[in-house]
Amino acid sequence: MSTQSNHTDVLDSRFAPVAELMASFAEEDPGYSGQLAIYQERNLVLDMSVGPDCTPESMTGVFSCSKGAGAIVMALLVQQGLLDLEAPVALYWPEFAAAGKSAITVAQLLSHQAGLPGVEGGFTQEELVDSRLAATILAATPPLWTAPGTHCYHALTMGVFMEELARRCAQESLQEIFEHRIRAPHDIDFYLGLPESQERRFRPVLKGPGGDAAPFIDPFSPMGLAMNSTGGFDGPEGRSFEVMDVPNVRAIREAGLASIGGVANARGLAKLYAVATTGFVDEAGQSHAPLLSSEAIAVMSRDRVFGLDRSNGYPGAFGIGFMKAHTGNDFGSARAFGHDGANGALGYADPAHSLALGYVPARPEANGTGSHGRDISVLARKALLAG
Amino acid sequence: MSTQSNHTDVLDSRFAPVAELMASFAEEDPGYSGQLAIYQERNLVLDMSVGPDCTPESMTGVFSCSKGAGAIVMALLVQQGLLDLEAPVALYWPEFAAAGKSAITVAQLLSHQAGLPGVEGGFTQEELVDSRLAATILAATPPLWTAPGTHCYHALTMGVFMEELARRCAQESLQEIFEHRIRAPHDIDFYLGLPESQERRFRPVLKGPGGDAAPFIDPFSPMGLAMNSTGGFDGPEGRSFEVMDVPNVRAIREAGLASIGGVANARGLAKLYAVATTGFVDEAGQSHAPLLSSEAIAVMSRDRVFGLDRSNGYPGAFGIGFMKAHTGNDFGSARAFGHDGANGALGYADPAHSLALGYVPARPEANGTGSHGRDISVLARKALLAG
Amino acid sequence: MSTQSNHTDVLDSRFAPVAELMASFAEEDPGYSGQLAIYQERNLVLDMSVGPDCTPESMTGVFSCSKGAGAIVMALLVQQGLLDLEAPVALYWPEFAAAGKSAITVAQLLSHQAGLPGVEGGFTQEELVDSRLAATILAATPPLWTAPGTHCYHALTMGVFMEELARRCAQESLQEIFEHRIRAPHDIDFYLGLPESQERRFRPVLKGPGGDAAPFIDPFSPMGLAMNSTGGFDGPEGRSFEVMDVPNVRAIREAGLASIGGVANARGLAKLYAVATTGFVDEAGQSHAPLLSSEAIAVMSRDRVFGLDRSNGYPGAFGIGFMKAHTGNDFGSARAFGHDGANGALGYADPAHSLALGYVPARPEANGTGSHGRDISVLARKALLAG
Repeated sequence: MSTQSNHTDVLDSRFAPVAELMASFAEEDPGYSGQLAIYQERNLVLDMSVGPDCTPESMTGVFSCSKGAGAIVMALLVQQGLLDLEAPVALYWPEFAAAGKSAITVAQLLSHQAGLPGVEGGFTQEELVDSRLAATILAATPPLWTAPGTHCYHALTMGVFMEELARRCAQESLQEIFEHRIRAPHDIDFYLGLPESQERRFRPVLKGPGGDAAPFIDPFSPMGLAMNSTGGFDGPEGRSFEVMDVPNVRAIREAGLASIGGVANARGLAKLYAVATTGFVDEAGQSHAPLLSSEAIAVMSRDRVFGLDRSNGYPGAFGIGFMKAHTGNDFGSARAFGHDGANGALGYADPAHSLALGYVPARPEANGTGSHGRDISVLARKALLAG
Repeated sequence: MSTQSNHTDVLDSRFAPVAELMASFAEEDPGYSGQLAIYQERNLVLDMSVGPDCTPESMTGVFSCSKGAGAIVMALLVQQGLLDLEAPVALYWPEFAAAGKSAITVAQLLSHQAGLPGVEGGFTQEELVDSRLAATILAATPPLWTAPGTHCYHALTMGVFMEELARRCAQESLQEIFEHRIRAPHDIDFYLGLPESQERRFRPVLKGPGGDAAPFIDPFSPMGLAMNSTGGFDGPEGRSFEVMDVPNVRAIREAGLASIGGVANARGLAKLYAVATTGFVDEAGQSHAPLLSSEAIAVMSRDRVFGLDRSNGYPGAFGIGFMKAHTGNDFGSARAFGHDGANGALGYADPAHSLALGYVPARPEANGTGSHGRDISVLARKALLAG
Repeated sequence: MSTQSNHTDVLDSRFAPVAELMASFAEEDPGYSGQLAIYQERNLVLDMSVGPDCTPESMTGVFSCSKGAGAIVMALLVQQGLLDLEAPVALYWPEFAAAGKSAITVAQLLSHQAGLPGVEGGFTQEELVDSRLAATILAATPPLWTAPGTHCYHALTMGVFMEELARRCAQESLQEIFEHRIRAPHDIDFYLGLPESQERRFRPVLKGPGGDAAPFIDPFSPMGLAMNSTGGFDGPEGRSFEVMDVPNVRAIREAGLASIGGVANARGLAKLYAVATTGFVDEAGQSHAPLLSSEAIAVMSRDRVFGLDRSNGYPGAFGIGFMKAHTGNDFGSARAFGHDGANGALGYADPAHSLALGYVPARPEANGTGSHGRDISVLARKALLAG
């Protein structure tokens, strides 16, 4: 490794080919920087950072990987018996019954089936940051469809739903639960609400290489609604919606929106999933039990929906809050669950392989593909199976 | 504009780019002729006719745009409380319960989910023109599938269903309801049943440029059944099925089949949707209230099914009788609803944009794509959003 | 025909173009050998064998065409009232209710909707050959999904399910029912369990021309599970999973696994479907009644699921046990039902055309496509319709 900031710890030689792949990204593209961390069977087996724009310790916005953190909070509530996935949402959140939504279950809501990707007026940043405001608006909104089994990616509102359910079921904010029961006790570099004291480690999300000109997206289409096209965030240069700038807004990462406000590094992303599913062995050799029971993992991670996404027309698969792998998004086995982010970040657990993986690039790939993360996942599994 | 028959009224300058697009179609293709009319916020904002084969007043066959007119009649019945979408079809049409169809609801029937695209023997023209005959046959027919959520486009039978439901619920024909409650009172150039007196304005549908050789369609496949391949229409040159000739058969346009028998121009198509959804301001500056309540519009236009069409393998989305826009057919927002026709005609309302649009070409595009209509819709919305 | 082993009987001149197509396969590819037989309206209308690696009488492995034979046994049980498709599987097989599967119906199980494509440890050959062992494992396994309407191809476990249901409902093995009630009485060259006496007619499945390098398939993905990637068959060169070698293992074809263990020739495959659906006229001119009532055919062959296959992302359609034709797999009308095999073999009945067709190649096509079988089916129907 030539650049001083580069760091590679291959703690399990089976994963050496994966380290080589990461190194090749930087060799082929001088603009590339990224972090990767992998746990296997509770142990950190690979830990690396390549390129000039990150260090092993630096953190950046991980966008919708935040939903994975939020879903782990949901899993805790399910495990504690505070949240019944088969219950109607309105049991916990009576206002949600409005406008024909009384029968929608928690499982449907948290698997992108409720038909509430956004609202026509858009949400203000304030309404998203204090998501009680967005939740009140969504509770009164009719669903886009009455078509059983239809789903579309609820890019921003999924976080609102999880946050509201946390408040209703646990009388605590999702961010508080995450901090006190998950992040702090295990010292995880994944923040839903980055404290001022950690700001020095934050690196802004960098601009990607761009790509094909974006097609027209009607702001009132399912996709436009999901992207909050008519609302906005108070971006650095005034009110504007620039997806890649969202975590660069201090107020957003301070609030730590469960939809897209998380700040992490690869170590944190991988450790989060190890903590949740397998437990982990710390640097002192001490073993820590997993946070979730195998029952809770199974019920949260099983497919709840598979089919064409109503908003983009591509196949998608979801469990409860978590993305599921499929042939169009091959990040794992039938039991793998996690979430990617708009910048190409990827975090997941794969119980079938006892893997927990975090990948965080410094900037998005051309055309927003997340191919690096998937290529890493495929190679990690190949390496593991080759033994 | 060089040709005398061309006519362009840009009544709202925001829509000038759309007028330019229409003009470009004719410039790029000497065989092109077409009409376009757009209402926005109750006002006619664009009205034009280009090319030698139409005038602003001329009318032609608009094929399945007729289903949009039929669906507006269904909306009236729903609004009046005469038709309950969640009721089984058999409540209104007891014979329909035969052959395992007792549980199929009106909503499923009118969103192409009933599995009755056609019958193996095919329908005669007589059976379609007097659709009580076709309805009797369909009532006795078992559905193609017992697969919840599956749909295929019911190209001809959808009209039969709507006509039968009108007879059963309103003791009147769908065509009479359309004429007396919708068309005549608002002077709309859209006829379900073209009277002899209007024949002078009718221009036959012209042959398109053709395109790729058609693949084999098994007459007994879902697609073949839907196209009535083994039945036929009494075409100009004897009994034959030539889709593009169907409205050229006087008996068909006289009967005004709700599936494919409508005759209209772009003004009529746009006005129909304005009348239904926003109301309109007439030439004297008089404002007319919309025909449908916002509740009726919502219940009719919400998605009822989204997924791969069983007959062609492509994604499709339908509300009650109406087509819905999706990424593969981008004619509007999540609330847009309308219908296209086999000749590339397109009519719809988009409440999110307060738009009502009608587009009627004189001949189909190569390979039957409806790209002109969609391009117009995209540009109209861009223009509107650019303000 | 130049090669001595070639044999062509065009018994109905309408099918001469189909015979020419078969001959062209061999002309274009010296490595090609294959058999084709077609019944129409109870009569054998085409019977041929081309290329050096088969004779009209030789038999080979037909892979998943075996599922069609198994499904015909299921149809007999349904016809006899021994098996109710709408009943929960657990009614017949109480252990199946474990792990959240109590509500899964027989129809869902037999249309690939149960979410049990395999198990992570894989099945041994012994567990598949004595499928009571595999059934016990599957009964205890949780489904991959709780997503209504989702399906994935259960390549091996479908046979286990059918065999278990036969044992539970008829107190007989599926293979015994097939032999005693279907194969032997009608002298069909399709064996589920090839007796020693017929081994001389068996030709091993030959290696195909290969094709694109196979992508990585996670052994624990839905596809990997379905392919029993972590289990195996006791292949000729020791324990290994080589799909194309499976019927070349004597123990497999002796057991005649309903999933993939059938051995047949084209005559047998076609005759099986003729026997089941239309009956047939034998060589002495004697007419034999069909085995299945039209009611049983309808209930077994109607679509139960249509959509993207969870394991490969491509569209699929299934009735009860049988594959259904669709635009991506055009082997017939809306009423056609049958099954193809991994080697490109195809057997089906198409009641709308009164066809029963069997096609058996000696080796798979490049990249495993089954295009020859589909091309034959399309041409046979065109020929028939041209009259």
